[in-house]
Amino acid sequence: MNEFELIRTLTAGLPGNDTVVVGPGDDCAVIESPGGGAQLLFKTDAVVEGIHFTMETEPEKVGHKALGRCLSDVAAMGGSATSALVTVGLPRDREVAWLKEVYRGMGELAARHGVSIVGGETTETSGPLFLSVAMLGEVPRGKAVLRRGGRAGDAIFVSGELGGSLAGRHLKFEPRLREGRWLAETFDVHALIDLSDGLASDLRHLLNAGGVGAELMAGSIPISRAARLQGRGESSRKPPLLAALTDGEDYELLFTVAPDDAVAVLDGWKRVFPDVPLTCVGKITEAKGVRIRDEHGVRNLEAHGYTHFK
Amino acid sequence: MNEFELIRTLTAGLPGNDTVVVGPGDDCAVIESPGGGAQLLFKTDAVVEGIHFTMETEPEKVGHKALGRCLSDVAAMGGSATSALVTVGLPRDREVAWLKEVYRGMGELAARHGVSIVGGETTETSGPLFLSVAMLGEVPRGKAVLRRGGRAGDAIFVSGELGGSLAGRHLKFEPRLREGRWLAETFDVHALIDLSDGLASDLRHLLNAGGVGAELMAGSIPISRAARLQGRGESSRKPPLLAALTDGEDYELLFTVAPDDAVAVLDGWKRVFPDVPLTCVGKITEAKGVRIRDEHGVRNLEAHGYTHFK
Repeated sequence: MNEFELIRTLTAGLPGNDTVVVGPGDDCAVIESPGGGAQLLFKTDAVVEGIHFTMETEPEKVGHKALGRCLSDVAAMGGSATSALVTVGLPRDREVAWLKEVYRGMGELAARHGVSIVGGETTETSGPLFLSVAMLGEVPRGKAVLRRGGRAGDAIFVSGELGGSLAGRHLKFEPRLREGRWLAETFDVHALIDLSDGLASDLRHLLNAGGVGAELMAGSIPISRAARLQGRGESSRKPPLLAALTDGEDYELLFTVAPDDAVAVLDGWKRVFPDVPLTCVGKITEAKGVRIRDEHGVRNLEAHGYTHFK
Repeated sequence: MNEFELIRTLTAGLPGNDTVVVGPGDDCAVIESPGGGAQLLFKTDAVVEGIHFTMETEPEKVGHKALGRCLSDVAAMGGSATSALVTVGLPRDREVAWLKEVYRGMGELAARHGVSIVGGETTETSGPLFLSVAMLGEVPRGKAVLRRGGRAGDAIFVSGELGGSLAGRHLKFEPRLREGRWLAETFDVHALIDLSDGLASDLRHLLNAGGVGAELMAGSIPISRAARLQGRGESSRKPPLLAALTDGEDYELLFTVAPDDAVAVLDGWKRVFPDVPLTCVGKITEAKGVRIRDEHGVRNLEAHGYTHFK
């Protein structure tokens, strides 16, 4: 059972109420706000020492990553982040100075995106340190962009460059909040997700529960320098393209728009975000499944993305 | 450094923004909602195996406790809970059937209080299982009841009976949401908190940062049956009164009102919540510090409440 199946099993049959616009299964939950108007985005995520970072990771980067992952999920709804709460599970021997640096990393990232950190809890743990972040955001009423909206013919875009994130980027990525908000405000974005498990895996969430498929163009996948470098190392023989498709932890935006909008999206993006690459990597197809096309032809692409439970 | 000092150290200097009404340090943060109107309550809390429950605890009670602690914090603002998110740090060997029972316990409690569970995340951990709950609630604009509002002369009330919670109640308490909301809607409640560390400790939060003091009446403290029974056991010689003052994990409401309102509060409560005891346990005083009066006179009362970091 992978993480998605597990969550689906666990959340089936749980109570809802009339404030719920989007429940489990998207990047954030969407909730009606009491006064009407903009809707609320609600998200929680945890990082654990030994899984998402190590004892050697600089503490301010631990804080950056913990907060950044939630911010990336808000970006993937086309929303703005407003407030965060932090719960720390703290081993007894951890020094307060270390934890202060974690908070400094969170605080700097929060300040850049106008997010307030409105509280924290600490609890003891006999195990590895964990940081759980809860995030509140908002999005104009009815404008949250969900995952499962890809339509046959849509152009598929990805921001940034993919692969090799564990070489360093996973600890210092800048969540694409401005980009996500701009996209949602400016275009009719059909489907939007942030890349956490890798393009080959996360792309499947856009396919309307399997109602449509996708075809990627191998030559168009933006491969990061880190993915190219790690391909050269002796310890890894993962080809750079495969790394870009499956490494995960990219925290880039993946989205689809109608083919008629594709040029306007590319032109507008280059004007507004000249420093962030945006690449059309393929299209949504009526034919189901995910395929990749290169100079040798078309092959099926499996989801080798990192899944948390196998 | 105790938990409160630690949080104060960590959250000093963190960024705020103009949506923050109440930041770190109260039972919940209070946030402006985008459409105006009611304000948002925002809270997060975690339970860890080996600290808040054991391997032997029935899993549905683990879920009940994890959610109930956050609900109790919403009650302590006089608000309503609306949505919750759950993050689980899961050891590899934990069975899904166990986790499903945890969710069942959460789901039943949530349903009773009209709370929707709008998502969950799971992450691996090499350490003990943890459950982190993020809670969203609401409270009429300007009506959130904070901790630090006790005024000299106020009557101090406590709901339920105190002490001995670890004998079982800490896993099955019903958060006092209806009671807290009724209090906030019906009376001018000066200060309100839920009892997690014990009356002798939590009372100090109501004292306006030390600007006032309190005097408890020993004979009035409502002592639970569990606290009386544990006092008899060989393994513990804690007197029942001390247990009621310091055991912690009571999850009852502690609040103050002007002396002129005291009788109306007692009468109204008995009518609306006939099955839940409400007791006047003392008064707020101009003299600083916390004292307890019994037939022998007045003694200073120290905070022997359980503090997470010593």
